[in-house]
Amino acid sequence: MKKNKKNKPSKELPLGFVDRQEKELLVRDFIISNIKKVMIKYGFQYLETPSFEYSDSIGKFLPDKDRPDEGVFSFKDEKNWLSLRYDLTAPLARYVAKNYLEIPKPFKRYQLGTVWRNEKPGPGRYREFLQFDADFVGTKSLQADAELCILISEILENCGLNKKEYIIKISSRKITEEIFKKIKVDDNKQKLTTLRALDKIDRLGWEGVKQLLGKGRKDKSGDFTKGANLSSENISTIETELKKKSPETEDLKEILKIFSDYNFSNFEIDPSVIRGLEYYTGPIFEVNLKFDVKNNKGQVIQFGSIGGGGRYDSLVNNFGNYDAPATGISIGLDRLVYAMMQKKEFKVKQIKPVVICIFDKKLMNEYINLQKILRSADISAEIYPGEGKLKKQMEYANKINSPAVILYGENEIKIGKPIIRDLISGVEKSILIKELVNEIKKII
Amino acid sequence: MKKNKKNKPSKELPLGFVDRQEKELLVRDFIISNIKKVMIKYGFQYLETPSFEYSDSIGKFLPDKDRPDEGVFSFKDEKNWLSLRYDLTAPLARYVAKNYLEIPKPFKRYQLGTVWRNEKPGPGRYREFLQFDADFVGTKSLQADAELCILISEILENCGLNKKEYIIKISSRKITEEIFKKIKVDDNKQKLTTLRALDKIDRLGWEGVKQLLGKGRKDKSGDFTKGANLSSENISTIETELKKKSPETEDLKEILKIFSDYNFSNFEIDPSVIRGLEYYTGPIFEVNLKFDVKNNKGQVIQFGSIGGGGRYDSLVNNFGNYDAPATGISIGLDRLVYAMMQKKEFKVKQIKPVVICIFDKKLMNEYINLQKILRSADISAEIYPGEGKLKKQMEYANKINSPAVILYGENEIKIGKPIIRDLISGVEKSILIKELVNEIKKII
Repeated sequence: MKKNKKNKPSKELPLGFVDRQEKELLVRDFIISNIKKVMIKYGFQYLETPSFEYSDSIGKFLPDKDRPDEGVFSFKDEKNWLSLRYDLTAPLARYVAKNYLEIPKPFKRYQLGTVWRNEKPGPGRYREFLQFDADFVGTKSLQADAELCILISEILENCGLNKKEYIIKISSRKITEEIFKKIKVDDNKQKLTTLRALDKIDRLGWEGVKQLLGKGRKDKSGDFTKGANLSSENISTIETELKKKSPETEDLKEILKIFSDYNFSNFEIDPSVIRGLEYYTGPIFEVNLKFDVKNNKGQVIQFGSIGGGGRYDSLVNNFGNYDAPATGISIGLDRLVYAMMQKKEFKVKQIKPVVICIFDKKLMNEYINLQKILRSADISAEIYPGEGKLKKQMEYANKINSPAVILYGENEIKIGKPIIRDLISGVEKSILIKELVNEIKKII
Repeated sequence: MKKNKKNKPSKELPLGFVDRQEKELLVRDFIISNIKKVMIKYGFQYLETPSFEYSDSIGKFLPDKDRPDEGVFSFKDEKNWLSLRYDLTAPLARYVAKNYLEIPKPFKRYQLGTVWRNEKPGPGRYREFLQFDADFVGTKSLQADAELCILISEILENCGLNKKEYIIKISSRKITEEIFKKIKVDDNKQKLTTLRALDKIDRLGWEGVKQLLGKGRKDKSGDFTKGANLSSENISTIETELKKKSPETEDLKEILKIFSDYNFSNFEIDPSVIRGLEYYTGPIFEVNLKFDVKNNKGQVIQFGSIGGGGRYDSLVNNFGNYDAPATGISIGLDRLVYAMMQKKEFKVKQIKPVVICIFDKKLMNEYINLQKILRSADISAEIYPGEGKLKKQMEYANKINSPAVILYGENEIKIGKPIIRDLISGVEKSILIKELVNEIKKII
């Protein structure tokens, strides 16, 4: 840990964690309020599972990891290993198993919650992020899968995106299952290595992925990742199949029929959408933003997916013999917020207080009175909270982007007329106290 | 860890963690929306620090613990020890130190966030809970301390509490400092042991506390806690001083003056309010609920404090030489929600969907049309999400507390008149599709 000479504790944050400022939080609140409205309209139950679970309850389903404890923050208390959840799906499966007799069947729930990944942090790679998940448990109806795509679209459009700014990509694990049959791969480990390689098409392109499907791939840093050991013939079969853009599996055909009944067209079939998760058994979805997003250096980047999901008909069965086929979708809210904040048309208003300046502490009851008048009218207002002189008070008001200050010294008090200074225009105005609320409303 | 015979993972939650249901979450959302409104009106900035901090950045300030890592969830990553925050004040001090040059001075911020304590869980003792904190940093003005008490009152009253249902208790660390001078105790460790003993008056009463002030105390389980080793004369001096109900310290007198300017009277001076935290340097506040609250067994309990705070003028100085005197208040939202849910007058409406029953999957486009009509009118509605027959569909609708089902079979479709069944009254009504929205609105 970094320490300065006097052995003071570090002022820095661990890598992969960030402080979030008001503007970002307000955009997030706006998105969350839209999510909640849509969730109510679509009839989902609101649920919250805790941050911690027993490690073995959620350990085996982590995407893209071989060892149960890899990539997870785990902690041993007096007796047991506990882990911070790395997603909201594994805890849902545990919840359904625990409450199987009590829950409605099917069970539709949504959750908003932080998840943690103990991964090597890098630029834009966080170890803590906020997710929104919606799931149907206890139904095989593909109406459920279709509706997940539709509700995400409704949320994004309610947040202000138009149909050109996002797309839902659809695929199915049945496509890859059929390919495995065709190329006669039936070893589960080899299948999983293949799927994980294919999930990297976005990042590595087909050339890189083909190396991972074959012997393996050395990355820029020189690290070597072992491949799936497929023959070059099988690799080209896979490539050909995944580049097809028409659905040939029954599940996708049925979903397309439902989309058409819903008059929903903002999707595309893309068999190259794989998603890293081992537990998917049917349709897979991915939500992609299509407008320009810049990174911290101001470069336009291929922003890609903000989330996705799919059908997982056997996950709850890890806990026992339950009839709980399921499908769900998950959105990474921090990524969505990051992108939304870059849209020029999109503005969230930050409300800053009118600052009532202090000329003399003995006059405090006068200032409290003005503050009370403003706050009673639901106007954000504060008496300068510090102890500096007028110059410092003005600096403070400017620093917090206050819309106006109120100047009410001995002379103004004598005639009962405070002065309002508009901090944008610089214009000052002497007014009666009874005009205060209306005059301030003109400025803010 | 509990395992069943087949070595399945546990369906249970680790002790001290809970799943939270919709009703509780809606009450919490209602409280949070009131908090945010008041925070904006009072001019506080919205901030969010991450769950993790470097252990040594927050380790030394944990309430009521001697070792830095005691009671905290800590993890070692590749190089460093990280800890989950146990409160929102220590991370704020780190934030202020890190961003000292950029922040406005004074700096007013609020935060809502989960905190974790790795303590022995017991009934009603959780290891994860949600806090709301509001703080002023960079001001010695007692106006700030007074306003914290006033804003909490405004939040509670906006949530529906009346003035008889809560009280803000006020004290000051200066009272105990004066007592220490009087009884000539100047050893910091002995002072801290004394304060921690006094903080237990609520739980142990004066008799138990007096043992802790003297040689020590054996609890019911036989565990012995060492005392502060004060003489019986000194102990009775402390008792006499703390039972006084009038302020004799300058800071409390000034706060009382400000309360009177604000016309705020829902407080009482109580020198026996101590709060366990070592870092307080001035006024201390505690927020107490006064209405009857029952425990899980239905017994009325002394519910006590839902939070509190105080002035901490030196905390940020742990990170270096900063001019950052501060004061803050913290509310335990889960406890507040628990109590609020028991108030009969207090109701949060859970909106449940109208269920459109499926008579034949081939008619799905008809059901999608009805669903679209309802949802377009912002009415919560869903097509039955499963695959069961009509009896199962009705069971489902009742289970989720749906207000009504819509029955639209072949015969009804022929005449274009769906049947609405009110699930409370049991009354059925055949209506035209164009009447659907209005008829449903009569029921929900």
